Amino acid sequence: MTVEYRRLRVALLGAGSVGSQVAALLLRHGDELADRAGAALDLAGIAVRDLDAPREADLPKDLFTTDAETLIVGSDIVIELMGGIEPARSHLLQAINSGADVVTANKALLATHGAEIFEAADQVGAQVYYEAAAAGAIPIIRPLRDSLAGDRVRRIMGIVNGTTNYILDRMDTEGAGFAEVLADAQRLGYAEADPTADVEGYDAAQKAAILASLAFHTTVPLDAVHREGITSIDKGIMDAARRAGYVIKLLAVCERLVDPDTEAESISVRVYPALVSRAHPLASVHGANNAVFVEAEAAGDLMFYGAGAGGVQTASAVLGDVVSAARRHIAGGVGVGESTRAGLAVAPVGRVVTRYQITLEVEDRPGVLAKVAGILSEGRVSIATVEQTVSGEDAATALLVIGTHKALEQDLSETVDRIAASGVVERVVSVLRVEGE
Amino acid sequence: MTVEYRRLRVALLGAGSVGSQVAALLLRHGDELADRAGAALDLAGIAVRDLDAPREADLPKDLFTTDAETLIVGSDIVIELMGGIEPARSHLLQAINSGADVVTANKALLATHGAEIFEAADQVGAQVYYEAAAAGAIPIIRPLRDSLAGDRVRRIMGIVNGTTNYILDRMDTEGAGFAEVLADAQRLGYAEADPTADVEGYDAAQKAAILASLAFHTTVPLDAVHREGITSIDKGIMDAARRAGYVIKLLAVCERLVDPDTEAESISVRVYPALVSRAHPLASVHGANNAVFVEAEAAGDLMFYGAGAGGVQTASAVLGDVVSAARRHIAGGVGVGESTRAGLAVAPVGRVVTRYQITLEVEDRPGVLAKVAGILSEGRVSIATVEQTVSGEDAATALLVIGTHKALEQDLSETVDRIAASGVVERVVSVLRVEGE
Repeated sequence: MTVEYRRLRVALLGAGSVGSQVAALLLRHGDELADRAGAALDLAGIAVRDLDAPREADLPKDLFTTDAETLIVGSDIVIELMGGIEPARSHLLQAINSGADVVTANKALLATHGAEIFEAADQVGAQVYYEAAAAGAIPIIRPLRDSLAGDRVRRIMGIVNGTTNYILDRMDTEGAGFAEVLADAQRLGYAEADPTADVEGYDAAQKAAILASLAFHTTVPLDAVHREGITSIDKGIMDAARRAGYVIKLLAVCERLVDPDTEAESISVRVYPALVSRAHPLASVHGANNAVFVEAEAAGDLMFYGAGAGGVQTASAVLGDVVSAARRHIAGGVGVGESTRAGLAVAPVGRVVTRYQITLEVEDRPGVLAKVAGILSEGRVSIATVEQTVSGEDAATALLVIGTHKALEQDLSETVDRIAASGVVERVVSVLRVEGE
Repeated sequence: MTVEYRRLRVALLGAGSVGSQVAALLLRHGDELADRAGAALDLAGIAVRDLDAPREADLPKDLFTTDAETLIVGSDIVIELMGGIEPARSHLLQAINSGADVVTANKALLATHGAEIFEAADQVGAQVYYEAAAAGAIPIIRPLRDSLAGDRVRRIMGIVNGTTNYILDRMDTEGAGFAEVLADAQRLGYAEADPTADVEGYDAAQKAAILASLAFHTTVPLDAVHREGITSIDKGIMDAARRAGYVIKLLAVCERLVDPDTEAESISVRVYPALVSRAHPLASVHGANNAVFVEAEAAGDLMFYGAGAGGVQTASAVLGDVVSAARRHIAGGVGVGESTRAGLAVAPVGRVVTRYQITLEVEDRPGVLAKVAGILSEGRVSIATVEQTVSGEDAATALLVIGTHKALEQDLSETVDRIAASGVVERVVSVLRVEGE
């Protein structure tokens, strides 16, 4: 290389699956990255907890240190890939306050302490990059933050968790049961030994908070995200969905709500397994892949598709951020803060209006449907379709699957409670929303 | 609004379909855009050729002027939506040299004079935004330019022209003929009265040059793009493709080539109708929609999908750029130049290696296939599949459809020339490449 570039000091915190790949790519493609960034990226060190832990990539031993604080001092760019809240939060704040731009893939941290971190960056004119925190390798942050900044997002529906999509996809295509597929997923490394964060929707909820904040220019706290997992989805529910022309996906839905009377706007952010028409582009997202479907007023429907996770895929997103940070450092000026001035309220899930599919276990005798229909009608929930099938286990009970017209979640929920308490049904098996219509 | 924002002067050049929508949205959503940009966007005027031409949006008369040069003076952001080379080029250079950031949707201009415009911007530290020039409303510039800046793109396959996708999709799904669907497309406004730019692939070639420049960090001149249109695709070719499990799409392919002997890298940029497996995500892009499929070394496969054209959709992309320009103005610093330091050579189409499907019109008599097979074998082209069908018009001639294994385009092309000159076949109906395998 004949060009003499300005040299930037890069500190890496964390050397797990993603961190090892980031370090390896930084070292291997250094010249190429320098050409693109207009600056040489010098990896000054890698802070880890345990110097002797095994690494996924073969990295020079002398780069490792356990002293993150000292490594951060004097760095131009700090990459945080430790995960968790502390000490990641303290290190990021130290980096920002010492004038570094920061890159993080830490969705848990951003979903809980994002406002604090963005404000600290604003104070000193630093920039926070976090492409890898929202949908793995899929570039979604820049499209939402920049490309759609002149548009109004109506709704985002995201398949943002690869583990649950893998499980639901195999249950759908193979007719397999939840426990069986989960065990397989754990064996193949698609699911953790403790799968709670994935299957209960916690991971998706963190991403939903980040996507909604960007799309609606509003700080969305994690605890405002309504969250349900997929552990209640069994073969029977999957089969009923298939017969009705749907597939079940764990969706992160971020939606702009407009009060019909006052025209006041609010937003809804929710994660739950939902019925998606087989004709919808999201229905064909298979395996551990992710996709984010965006409905915007002017741009219309957009979809972003790709691998949701994986060390090297996520490393691609992190390195894109590192190059952006380097370019900004060279260009000068202060960072562009997060746009949160819309300040929309996050509505409770009760304000959502969708169609529903209610699955009830009932005694197979005359009059049951009439009673259930009566309770629904009293609750202002209008029936669109009814299917009654004999349950596999016991011929005396049947499954009653009711598709509703659009209803207010609060009305629906109260009505289902009344059905459950009425003594008419044995059990409410599931209540699923229909999304993407 | 209680916040006092810095005011930025915005000049708009052109008030056609996209320009009218940009002006209307700027005026309608001014407060919201100011909140997002951190600056008030004052539309200072709209330069047009004819003050009395009808407009698609109802805009204040006093904004219009025929004096673009005067309007540009003192502007912070200049939006060029006039199209064509001149006077668009001169106006953009004037704007850049007077210190404005510029936003353009002018793919013809960027594909032919991009290097000149980017260099002028570099000289003064201005920024050029052009999200709407590559794939309509689909955010693809920022993902390629920024998100994938730390990765290595292997290949891009884009459906980047809505008109031809509309035509090919209807030919495929309805079995309709080219002329018939083109006439329909013209009636519905999907195709121009003179459809040459679309159906001959000129529009797609401009976009291919822009995408390849970004993806491979190399200035790709328009005349280095190999271009073929779709006018030769008839019902017979479409039917043969369908029988073989393919759909025909006009693809912009940007590919990194590696010389097997020297390992030297070059790139290939080409636009032609290609066979795409029905299982490939690009096969399900219907109607006038666009999609860009990206294969990257670390990120894996990504796809970006959305509306390819339309005034209001493209306006969304333009306004995203305007907000970005405003944020940069507020943040200070100089613009980030285009990354073209890789400087890869653009290889001629002869260096491309793919599989092919060759359709020949032959006399229906013994020995023809043997002779054709002999010529292919001499030309180092290996046959994978053969299908012979009697042509509909004349029972004495037949269509011979030959699928090849991977071959060098140069070998294939010379071999097809020899077949055509051999006297063995009546006519070479088509030679199509298979892409996306």
